[in-house]
Amino acid sequence: MKRRKFLKTAGLGVAASTLAAPAIAQSNVLQWRMATSWPKSLDTLFGGAEYMCKRIGELSGGKFQVRCFAGGEIVPALAIADSVGNGTVEMGHTASYYYVGKDPCFAFDCALPFGLNQRAQQSWMIFGGGQKLVDEFYAGYNIKSIIAGNTGTQMGGWYRHEVKSLADLKGLKFRIGGVLSGQVCTRLGVVPQQIAGGDIYPALEKGTIDAAEWVGPYDDEKLGFYKVAQYYYAPGWWEVGPQLSAYINTAKWNSLSAEYKAIVEAAAADANMWMMAKYDAENPVALRRLLGGGAKLRAFSNDIMDAALKASNDLYGEIAEKNPMFKKMYASWHPFRSIDVEWFGVCENRINNFMSSHVKELSAMKKG
Amino acid sequence: MKRRKFLKTAGLGVAASTLAAPAIAQSNVLQWRMATSWPKSLDTLFGGAEYMCKRIGELSGGKFQVRCFAGGEIVPALAIADSVGNGTVEMGHTASYYYVGKDPCFAFDCALPFGLNQRAQQSWMIFGGGQKLVDEFYAGYNIKSIIAGNTGTQMGGWYRHEVKSLADLKGLKFRIGGVLSGQVCTRLGVVPQQIAGGDIYPALEKGTIDAAEWVGPYDDEKLGFYKVAQYYYAPGWWEVGPQLSAYINTAKWNSLSAEYKAIVEAAAADANMWMMAKYDAENPVALRRLLGGGAKLRAFSNDIMDAALKASNDLYGEIAEKNPMFKKMYASWHPFRSIDVEWFGVCENRINNFMSSHVKELSAMKKG
Repeated sequence: MKRRKFLKTAGLGVAASTLAAPAIAQSNVLQWRMATSWPKSLDTLFGGAEYMCKRIGELSGGKFQVRCFAGGEIVPALAIADSVGNGTVEMGHTASYYYVGKDPCFAFDCALPFGLNQRAQQSWMIFGGGQKLVDEFYAGYNIKSIIAGNTGTQMGGWYRHEVKSLADLKGLKFRIGGVLSGQVCTRLGVVPQQIAGGDIYPALEKGTIDAAEWVGPYDDEKLGFYKVAQYYYAPGWWEVGPQLSAYINTAKWNSLSAEYKAIVEAAAADANMWMMAKYDAENPVALRRLLGGGAKLRAFSNDIMDAALKASNDLYGEIAEKNPMFKKMYASWHPFRSIDVEWFGVCENRINNFMSSHVKELSAMKKG
Repeated sequence: MKRRKFLKTAGLGVAASTLAAPAIAQSNVLQWRMATSWPKSLDTLFGGAEYMCKRIGELSGGKFQVRCFAGGEIVPALAIADSVGNGTVEMGHTASYYYVGKDPCFAFDCALPFGLNQRAQQSWMIFGGGQKLVDEFYAGYNIKSIIAGNTGTQMGGWYRHEVKSLADLKGLKFRIGGVLSGQVCTRLGVVPQQIAGGDIYPALEKGTIDAAEWVGPYDDEKLGFYKVAQYYYAPGWWEVGPQLSAYINTAKWNSLSAEYKAIVEAAAADANMWMMAKYDAENPVALRRLLGGGAKLRAFSNDIMDAALKASNDLYGEIAEKNPMFKKMYASWHPFRSIDVEWFGVCENRINNFMSSHVKELSAMKKG
């Protein structure tokens, strides 16, 4: 079967860089494919998936190789859950909330509006019972899902005009990713738009839409939105700490040795650190460039934030009434969020706020 | 040489749990030792080191095994740099600021007062040029140092009496870890005390010292300080995001294959996520228990925070004048801190503060 798999994928070629040892007997090499939701231009999201694949090769001394494909190369960018579940590909790298249309439970290993920040998300998954619940849910889709990245809190998007209060959201045509965030926005009077990445710029330019959110400064800059919608809002309350997940087909996962399972998990953990570290290095510099290019930073007003939180919680309550698995996952996730928010308020936020309020002083002291 | 190493360590026994495959030929097994700075009771710090060793075993299919030792078991808890550098042990797990007495540059892969938070620390190391500078510095000590954990922002310690303003710090006998933080405290009028973990409680009880800091709620709770010094201050501005490091003797590191180097790195990255996730799950619950047991939360006053920041920056300037390597590392670290603080202030802090200010509302909504 390994031999057949090799023959099946050999025509696609194997990047020499993933071969740690050059003279490996081909029949001993396990060859898998990872389909991702990302264009290659998103070099932190796609780059994180690629990094994970490279690590699997290195950790196995070249005996386990996973080739990484951009969205659309072998399967559609937003069909990763189906493609991994039905075994078209062995692995995927995606944001699980793309599949909330199938079931809202898909949001829990990615992001829900006003959800967990990056640290709380990984903490809930590993020590808060999250991974166990995620495993239980994904078993119905023949997928094993593990933590393999995060973007950190995303920005709230680009707006052609200022949005000063809740009233300004009425009728706003807003391109927003994610079904749950779209549903919350609808409750605020927004008219959510589903538009693929490449079509956002012309729609914003023509005024077909009023606003659009994407990721954060580094990824947004590549699409050039600041040229046609200069007001850049924060924070993206619908994506507080969105986890990216590595998917593995369950039967394929079960076929791995304990060693190879550990290799996949450790490569994903390493990619998780790598991706967050890269965003935290790239976003600040990109934001400065965007501001230099004319972008104007704005914060969502309190009435918008309060209304959005209330709408989110109402929505979760309604979903939980109809969906027992959502209810079960929410019952674990919800108290974890409360207590982690409480703890961050005591210590972590306090020093971050202090540093933030002294940022000019910090910069001025650079002489050392 | 592997055979000799095996004979040398065989008498110490190898935990069966680290053997992924039971019937491995012993001569093929690379056996290393990791000396740590941690007592076994600190199950997140020692636990993180142990987790890393376990992962190395799993990732290598049992062919590379590292046995983990508590502080003092085979070398003194605070002699990890010497013991790894001179090859007494192949590896260590420690907080590098313990060695600032040798050279203040040791602080950069751990923590400096008002330093980088957990995310900024790993971002600077991986993408901000930090690892390269750390490698350059540690070459002089025959050590390779890599990221292998973090505690997150620590608490500011336990005080027998309230400390309401800078004036209250004059003459305060304060047990504090770390040489740089002690030097900053001295500039604020504090009299820093060096006391080992086990001796802190009786000193606080008798009033020999006025206050003591340790780590955060989960670790502090084990030492019971709340019973004898009830005021619990935040934040620990001297430990904003302290990195724990895995040390590897340089010659031993260079002797590893590319595969085994990748295994050590990925195991450390996995331990980094594991440790932060465990603290973020344990600290909030421990804090609630401590508050239930009579601890009283307090925040350091603005005048204390401002004076401490100024004293820290003065200190760094003075060290940089005398120490060219410190100057070089600071010149990379300092602007990274400024721009990351700026970015956190735009987005991440904003959502964390909003969530924090709505914590009661979040808890009340638990019905879903």
